[in-house]
Amino acid sequence: MPQPVNTVVVGTVAFDAIETPFGKTDRVIGGSATYISLAASYFAETAKNDPGIGIVSVVGDDFPKEMIDRFHNKGISTDGMEVKAGQKSFFWSGKYHMDMNSRDTLVTDLNVLADFDPQLPEHYRQPDYLMLGNIDPKLQLQVMDQIPTRPKLVVMDTMNFWMDIALDTLKQAIAKVDVLTINDEEARQLSGEYSIVKAARKILQMGPSYLIIKKGEHGALIFHANNVFFAPALPLEEVFDPTGAGDTFAGGFLGHLVRSGDLSFENMKRAIIFGSGMASFCVEQFGPERLYDLTEDDIDHRVHAFIDLVQVDIQLVG
Amino acid sequence: MPQPVNTVVVGTVAFDAIETPFGKTDRVIGGSATYISLAASYFAETAKNDPGIGIVSVVGDDFPKEMIDRFHNKGISTDGMEVKAGQKSFFWSGKYHMDMNSRDTLVTDLNVLADFDPQLPEHYRQPDYLMLGNIDPKLQLQVMDQIPTRPKLVVMDTMNFWMDIALDTLKQAIAKVDVLTINDEEARQLSGEYSIVKAARKILQMGPSYLIIKKGEHGALIFHANNVFFAPALPLEEVFDPTGAGDTFAGGFLGHLVRSGDLSFENMKRAIIFGSGMASFCVEQFGPERLYDLTEDDIDHRVHAFIDLVQVDIQLVG
Repeated sequence: MPQPVNTVVVGTVAFDAIETPFGKTDRVIGGSATYISLAASYFAETAKNDPGIGIVSVVGDDFPKEMIDRFHNKGISTDGMEVKAGQKSFFWSGKYHMDMNSRDTLVTDLNVLADFDPQLPEHYRQPDYLMLGNIDPKLQLQVMDQIPTRPKLVVMDTMNFWMDIALDTLKQAIAKVDVLTINDEEARQLSGEYSIVKAARKILQMGPSYLIIKKGEHGALIFHANNVFFAPALPLEEVFDPTGAGDTFAGGFLGHLVRSGDLSFENMKRAIIFGSGMASFCVEQFGPERLYDLTEDDIDHRVHAFIDLVQVDIQLVG
Repeated sequence: MPQPVNTVVVGTVAFDAIETPFGKTDRVIGGSATYISLAASYFAETAKNDPGIGIVSVVGDDFPKEMIDRFHNKGISTDGMEVKAGQKSFFWSGKYHMDMNSRDTLVTDLNVLADFDPQLPEHYRQPDYLMLGNIDPKLQLQVMDQIPTRPKLVVMDTMNFWMDIALDTLKQAIAKVDVLTINDEEARQLSGEYSIVKAARKILQMGPSYLIIKKGEHGALIFHANNVFFAPALPLEEVFDPTGAGDTFAGGFLGHLVRSGDLSFENMKRAIIFGSGMASFCVEQFGPERLYDLTEDDIDHRVHAFIDLVQVDIQLVG
């Protein structure tokens, strides 16, 4: 049996075609598992005793071998990524509006994703860390069922689509995870509360110990018990393409936790900053391009910028 | 001649009727100068050698004497507030949408505001601090012309309405001030740049040394030369009414600067936190109610919450 994989990432590996007010691409590499694992890989490199990251996904035989090689070069196993002969990879096409916070889906071709039936290879079945990217909550549950010993940390991403069509199953999945990541509108929808503070309180009662609310260009919040922490998004010169930013954020967040092995709230705060830093790279180019060749200096420099952005020294009278 | 006024606040003093998803009011006290001066008054109390704040505005004789008394009790002079006999005060009515970041104007009755011709009393003509609330930029210029010695600091608020109908006059006013406060959409409109970083750079070339970008529930940014600082908005249990939050923010910002007399960028960062703190009270009740009886402890407690919200200790490898 190959070396056990320490961090399992479930999600899509796909093609996207994207139009933003600043440009347009034909097919580029996309998918939640792509962004998550690429972002996390920068942290895995420095992890102690870490045999790496494994992707659980499905692609068609149109998926480029160069990208699979790139995963391997980054220490990402694709043993859990099924390649279906004679079939096409999942394809999504979308167009962003001027404010870049809203988008229209133009095309969704499920292709291989239509009957995705995740089967974890033997050496993926005892991970310390499990990241459930945004897919059908039924599949997220199915993956959890294949891991007999509960991982140290399970992080789950989802979206309003599943709240609309599969709320009961979604709630079953949410009940089993440690960290849930959604955006502010989704937090309101899931809880039925307008106030983000009240929404967070309700969602934390559904199972997760930590709730991360992603607000795109407006930053991210993490809630835990009665604690809350906020990380801004960095104001950037150029924002070309928000696609994958949320997944990249989750990958950086997870990567920092894996690297440090520290699951305290204080360290989750640091992880949020690393996630925000990774996401700030992601949006600077179309697709995951910007995540291929970052250096440790690039990342440190970005994280320093985050710290400076909110650094203030106040002495209160009272 | 009465004691000279150290801080002059120009803007509206008015009535509002507000509907939000959480409730509805008939006529309540409103107006930019109301919110700004009330918020600033909490800081004026502890200022050294500060003869106080003076409002420049106009109301009808329907404006309640109790509110004028309240201004006086807070150390706010109304000698520059004309009361027009037989006329009605400015009235605005609006309805907020579910996201509370957008609103529809239902009624705008200019009344006394239609021919507002600000005339500063003699003892208002040598202030150290001048706050130009959101009114016709022609009037903002007219007020600056009545102050022969330039104040230490001029802060100006405006909105997209003036960009649409009086851009040239607006630019003349902007060229003369130190700090401009607008929201993110307005910064994009004024500069013609989508990127907030590029927008800020262009606006800083129009005259102001400091640009504050207000993002409502998403916080505020301040730009100065190549520096940027971000203060989040506090996630609140209850948000009843955003009316006046931007003005309250400006009042708290100005108040801290007046109190400290320190106009460095480092201190502007602190001022942004105090402004955000004051704004976080404002939204908790309809109208300016919440600003009537705050204590120094209330304010310190809120400012502590802001600091905690972004407090993180990161040691970087690099």
